[in-house]
Amino acid sequence: MEKQKVLINGERLKQTVEEFADFGRTKNNGVTRLALSEIDIKVRDHFKSVCEELGMTVKWDDMGNMYATLEGVENDKPPVVIGSHLDSVEKGGRFDGVLGVLTGLEVVRILVENNIKPQIPVVVANITNEEGARFEPSLMASGVLSGRFDKDEMLRSTDKNGITFAESLHASGYKGSKENRLTDAKAFLELHIEQGPVLESESIDIGIVECVVGMCCYEIEVVGDSDHAGTTPMQMRKDALFTTNSLINEIREKMSKLDSDLVYTIGRLNVSPNIHTVIPNKVVFTLEARHKEATTIWQVEEIIQRLTQSEGKEKCKVTARKLWERDTVWFNDKLVNALEDSCKSLDYSYKRMPSGAGHDAQFIATYLPAAMIFVPSVNGKSHAEDELTTWKDCEQGVNVVLQTVLDLSSI
Amino acid sequence: MEKQKVLINGERLKQTVEEFADFGRTKNNGVTRLALSEIDIKVRDHFKSVCEELGMTVKWDDMGNMYATLEGVENDKPPVVIGSHLDSVEKGGRFDGVLGVLTGLEVVRILVENNIKPQIPVVVANITNEEGARFEPSLMASGVLSGRFDKDEMLRSTDKNGITFAESLHASGYKGSKENRLTDAKAFLELHIEQGPVLESESIDIGIVECVVGMCCYEIEVVGDSDHAGTTPMQMRKDALFTTNSLINEIREKMSKLDSDLVYTIGRLNVSPNIHTVIPNKVVFTLEARHKEATTIWQVEEIIQRLTQSEGKEKCKVTARKLWERDTVWFNDKLVNALEDSCKSLDYSYKRMPSGAGHDAQFIATYLPAAMIFVPSVNGKSHAEDELTTWKDCEQGVNVVLQTVLDLSSI
Repeated sequence: MEKQKVLINGERLKQTVEEFADFGRTKNNGVTRLALSEIDIKVRDHFKSVCEELGMTVKWDDMGNMYATLEGVENDKPPVVIGSHLDSVEKGGRFDGVLGVLTGLEVVRILVENNIKPQIPVVVANITNEEGARFEPSLMASGVLSGRFDKDEMLRSTDKNGITFAESLHASGYKGSKENRLTDAKAFLELHIEQGPVLESESIDIGIVECVVGMCCYEIEVVGDSDHAGTTPMQMRKDALFTTNSLINEIREKMSKLDSDLVYTIGRLNVSPNIHTVIPNKVVFTLEARHKEATTIWQVEEIIQRLTQSEGKEKCKVTARKLWERDTVWFNDKLVNALEDSCKSLDYSYKRMPSGAGHDAQFIATYLPAAMIFVPSVNGKSHAEDELTTWKDCEQGVNVVLQTVLDLSSI
Repeated sequence: MEKQKVLINGERLKQTVEEFADFGRTKNNGVTRLALSEIDIKVRDHFKSVCEELGMTVKWDDMGNMYATLEGVENDKPPVVIGSHLDSVEKGGRFDGVLGVLTGLEVVRILVENNIKPQIPVVVANITNEEGARFEPSLMASGVLSGRFDKDEMLRSTDKNGITFAESLHASGYKGSKENRLTDAKAFLELHIEQGPVLESESIDIGIVECVVGMCCYEIEVVGDSDHAGTTPMQMRKDALFTTNSLINEIREKMSKLDSDLVYTIGRLNVSPNIHTVIPNKVVFTLEARHKEATTIWQVEEIIQRLTQSEGKEKCKVTARKLWERDTVWFNDKLVNALEDSCKSLDYSYKRMPSGAGHDAQFIATYLPAAMIFVPSVNGKSHAEDELTTWKDCEQGVNVVLQTVLDLSSI
């Protein structure tokens, strides 16, 4: 017999998103809600009271991560967790992070108002300081949960005013017990805006995220000679900027032959001495590349190595050093399939895709079954006040999560 | 009958250069002697007393320019002037500027010790603040002499401590009368180090400077979109840095087809937001080009205009604005020929060449007959403590000036 098709309340979801956006709403209809700031504490309080009104129990752990639990039939079983983050960047949008938390809230509201008691507990989670906009690094608390980051080091992280994360956490009232940490779950599901243009441009409703792509980031230094721009003939120059230009040509030409899903960016580039009448003697630039397949990243690294080896770089010296790298994190197969089944049953268009950006779920995925759902970002914009996901797209995304939670919590 | 071949005293020239380098000598055997600084005043006093010992009369004008005059037979006739500057940049070399002044001193010493009374007066000039290292702009006093710069504006120029040029000039004791300005001359001859690698690399003794090249300097702005480096597929980007890379390719390719004497430099380039994980949305860079022929500069300007017009700049917007330009200043034909004759008579190798750098003589040339002589710079270096011209090259350069002064002052 076909399962009863319960759908979420799109109008209520919209109202809730706007209600939460009032905590830190900016002039241009964006949101500024830095981690553990006064307004972040207020939105946490609000989240807590809303959850408690729904009959949930709210706890928080030693990193300030909040867990609102709706009891199931079997409360000793690992829960289904729906979570993301309530913090934002400075002048961010109304959707990034918060939408994943409110997804959980709407799912629970549907369960409660339909008197659906899940077989196992359903937890709605708010993970602390995903953005890293006030306290570096980003993904701070999920990094600690997964053992990737050292807790003491994180506690020492300071904001621009010299306030430590530890002080700020203590003052917030959301410093809880380590025992409350998320240590087990049947599933961790994070719905998030795509933050890229792919779904919108291909007119696809839902992105089912297979993985968070691996990446490498290099810093490349080109050293030449700073001669006088007026008195040094072209062929006698060791111009670090022109050599950099040739290197970028080589990078673009070789990278374009690799898999078309590869993205690579030269985001930072500094010229010395950077005076219009002096031939540049040094250029330092970063090159970062992301792809889900390790072999493609290796190909990128080979290209970078060859930049430093080949001869005739217009007499300049080229060196490269790796700043950092991370491996691709693959999400749980069964959950990815379950999300796909939900899309099919709801008759939404979808595509399996990698995430180029980092998310808490990627750290959670290293020790628990986890998966992510993307909803389209208008113009691919995020971390901006005009960040937008249409209400219809929000609603469809949450329906996918509801459907999947119903499936997972009824077994 | 062939003229008597008088030659300068190379050993004395060397000693005099080192003696003057003692005024502001740095640890690494360079010189710091900023315009009207305490040490510049000391070297002026020394220059004055040395000239007076030789029987010269020393005066200075309202910009602090010093003129030491050796009387000739006809003292109402316009003099031959040999001049350059005694000021230096911070941690500059022992040759830049001062060698041109000491050239005059050595020429006068030869005349005096050989009892050669010139037909017309011979003036050795020290032009104030050529470098502009303490008070901007460079070529300040010659700019005022030639009417190119407004004197009152120059007097208001301040150093980094807020001291005005006017205050500094007044305190130095070298604020003289406007009546003493250089207003007429049979010739203004400036010997200077090349500050470029051409003479040394071609093993040529003497550069006879035909002109100071004209130039144009543009600022080019490329505006794209700042999207997320992880989530934006390559073909959907409006990457201002990659577009800049393509523009530089176009610049280099088209410029390489113009006259091979053209020099052009992209000295300043700034990327926004300059963060390694963000696709650059803006790049601003300067492009300056120098060539003696105006038509070549026009060709450069056409290339720059086309950069902003052509389509398909990877969806970025390209604009260009001219920061400044200057026309080529041609030196006096007869003087250039006279210098060439001197080289021939001395059996020195020489080449006629343009100056890519600016010099006081270029402003003097706008109202008096002027010409310049270059001597080789080892490795093309200048404005550096390791700036070097060999003693032999110094000696030969001064011999060319001596020979020319003998010719000019005996007519």
